[in-house]
Amino acid sequence: MAGRHRVVILGGGFGGLYAAKALRGQDVDVTLVDRHNYHLFQPLLYQVATGSLSPSEIASPLRAVLRNQKNARVWLGEATSIDAEARQLILKDGSVPYDSLIVACGAQSHYFGHDDWEAVSPGLKSLEDAIHLRRKVLYAFEAAEREPDPARRQAWLTFVIVGGGPTGVELGGALAEIAHNTLRSDFRSIHPEEARILLVEGETRILTTFPEKLSAAAEQSLAELGVQTRTKVKVTGIDESGVTLSGAAGTERIESRTVIWAAGVAPSGFGKILAERAGAKLDREGRVMVTPDLTIEGHPEIFVIGDLAHVATDAAPLPGVAPVAMQQGAYTAHAIVARLRGGNVAAFHYHDKGNLAVIGRAAGVADFGTFGFHGVLAWLLWLFVHLMYLAGFQNRLLVFMRWGFQYLTFSRGSRLITGWPLQGEQE
Amino acid sequence: MAGRHRVVILGGGFGGLYAAKALRGQDVDVTLVDRHNYHLFQPLLYQVATGSLSPSEIASPLRAVLRNQKNARVWLGEATSIDAEARQLILKDGSVPYDSLIVACGAQSHYFGHDDWEAVSPGLKSLEDAIHLRRKVLYAFEAAEREPDPARRQAWLTFVIVGGGPTGVELGGALAEIAHNTLRSDFRSIHPEEARILLVEGETRILTTFPEKLSAAAEQSLAELGVQTRTKVKVTGIDESGVTLSGAAGTERIESRTVIWAAGVAPSGFGKILAERAGAKLDREGRVMVTPDLTIEGHPEIFVIGDLAHVATDAAPLPGVAPVAMQQGAYTAHAIVARLRGGNVAAFHYHDKGNLAVIGRAAGVADFGTFGFHGVLAWLLWLFVHLMYLAGFQNRLLVFMRWGFQYLTFSRGSRLITGWPLQGEQE
Repeated sequence: MAGRHRVVILGGGFGGLYAAKALRGQDVDVTLVDRHNYHLFQPLLYQVATGSLSPSEIASPLRAVLRNQKNARVWLGEATSIDAEARQLILKDGSVPYDSLIVACGAQSHYFGHDDWEAVSPGLKSLEDAIHLRRKVLYAFEAAEREPDPARRQAWLTFVIVGGGPTGVELGGALAEIAHNTLRSDFRSIHPEEARILLVEGETRILTTFPEKLSAAAEQSLAELGVQTRTKVKVTGIDESGVTLSGAAGTERIESRTVIWAAGVAPSGFGKILAERAGAKLDREGRVMVTPDLTIEGHPEIFVIGDLAHVATDAAPLPGVAPVAMQQGAYTAHAIVARLRGGNVAAFHYHDKGNLAVIGRAAGVADFGTFGFHGVLAWLLWLFVHLMYLAGFQNRLLVFMRWGFQYLTFSRGSRLITGWPLQGEQE
Repeated sequence: MAGRHRVVILGGGFGGLYAAKALRGQDVDVTLVDRHNYHLFQPLLYQVATGSLSPSEIASPLRAVLRNQKNARVWLGEATSIDAEARQLILKDGSVPYDSLIVACGAQSHYFGHDDWEAVSPGLKSLEDAIHLRRKVLYAFEAAEREPDPARRQAWLTFVIVGGGPTGVELGGALAEIAHNTLRSDFRSIHPEEARILLVEGETRILTTFPEKLSAAAEQSLAELGVQTRTKVKVTGIDESGVTLSGAAGTERIESRTVIWAAGVAPSGFGKILAERAGAKLDREGRVMVTPDLTIEGHPEIFVIGDLAHVATDAAPLPGVAPVAMQQGAYTAHAIVARLRGGNVAAFHYHDKGNLAVIGRAAGVADFGTFGFHGVLAWLLWLFVHLMYLAGFQNRLLVFMRWGFQYLTFSRGSRLITGWPLQGEQE
């Protein structure tokens, strides 16, 4: 007995999950392998980090998402290698055989060779990151409340965000709201509106993937919220007590106890494993070069999708956003099914449906290529799209309620300092 | 200028928070000191541990709770000692002067001299405990799904709860629901209904604070849910692979990867500090013996309330439940205000409004001294009372929704394995 065609998917992010779902009802066995037991809605991670939403509202247990899909099972495990000849995915504690493999393990924070910055300037790629960052941000206000020395207090109240992409902009807007609205009545010794929020970007403008006009509008909105934007400035040093910037005007030191890394991501290290063990070629950043049908040269049974993939015939890689991964996941599923039926599918083509970013309360930017706009409408569109794609009806309703409350009362219900003490606390 | 009377409250649990709130609008300065930035609704902690609720739904930021109380401020800090002569509470990083001090730091899990059990058999007193336990419980099912050896698999699917008080009973009922309903369709290799849930109690019956008839009803309800109750059995050993029980029938070894400690609590270690530094007397368990007005002999300005207090004239200490702490908190506030006005208050008297415990879906027990009942009505009453006392309208609504969803769909929205790997994972 040959058995059913076994599809193994590595990674339960947008790419992997949409691939699994697109295989529903097909005559294949699907195994979804992930280190975590949940699908994480990464675009809302910054809202956990800033106390708007609670972790479980943006994370759905993978087993719950796939419980009614009888041909799919979930495997909690960490992939360490691959045996491409024997068609086995090697896990830390076992192995999983496959006929088709879909590698969708995404990206992680990247510090451009400054790995020592990670300890003092956390990124925002996982739930643990978000809880860590939430603790760091909320603790800074607590420490400022207790600090009698004005200079040290100002360092606790200075927040530097490195990176002016959507995550940096969204974090900046959220921090400004916390400082100027949410916490306004919460402290007695400090005035949270004294907080200084700095958004640092190396390029000439923030939100470089948007048209110039919308970048300018976003910068204007941030300024109205009290976020200072610094463009054409490079970060040359980060340590526990602050950040060193270097620009046309020379070098500047900013004392800050909270430096947040939103500057760069690197593809998952599994790309390197595919290069070593399956002959995959990588681009300069470490993405896997794939054929137009998203497979590795010489291994038509290994698909690579999402942030980890770079289609070799494209000049530049597709942006590392959820819609690319989702479309590639669905494409891969269709390609596998078509092949099993003896057919084939055309090359993958990305349908860019537009680009959204939110800046704060009732402000956003929207870009649809031929036209773009900013303001309340873009913000509402952002809310709608994010609610729509959030997995699970219950989470959609809970998040909708949280947002409604927050809009009306400026409160943030999930402002908890949990976990273990950070470096620099209680000193 | 003498300044206003300074009331310092140590601990933001039920006792401390109700004391602070009862001082609203009074001519005193209130400082509430806590290690955490939130008030934790401990009676619902087991629902976080079992994935029903998310941490932020049962924890309210103290600053948010007290933001409109202008005479109160919150101080994030850890008390390490006291200078009773100089009237200073000593923190890890400073000190806080007081005119009246209210010590309300509660209790912690207690292993009766077996501190090594803590690592393998976590208790349930903090949010971190609950997240840790949630991880442990959910991981056990994941590990069982991957385990080919039947005996080892059964050990992963065996859950032992030590202690048949309300927490143990509620945990047992919740675990049974998870195993038999929530996860029923989620796994492919294992059948979660094969899970074995054991509730171990050293006394002759569970829920010893309830009348015998209600204990029997609770045991019956648990049996219907598939929870085995073992009374008159002592735990003599706990390690990573299981638990050793000792009863009239001899010694028995049960292989289990998940042993949960719901057996005992001990008063906070701050009692010992009060004994050493302020001459307080302790009872055998470490509670502070207090006068009928809840102060320490010789220090009428130091109040001790809640789980840490034992009124010297009472035969037995009051039960360590929220209503006692709440009433003592309010009493203390009134006593301080009365004294400032030159008056005095009568001795503290606890009004026992009844006793509730929930066993599972639509089953509970209620005891009102002169009468008691069990079943759906007790369960509804439990739901109502817990919702009513939960801090914050937003949390009340969110929890209500979660419970509604869960009742209708058996789903548990907060089933996340977060945090760091536990001992025994990925082996």
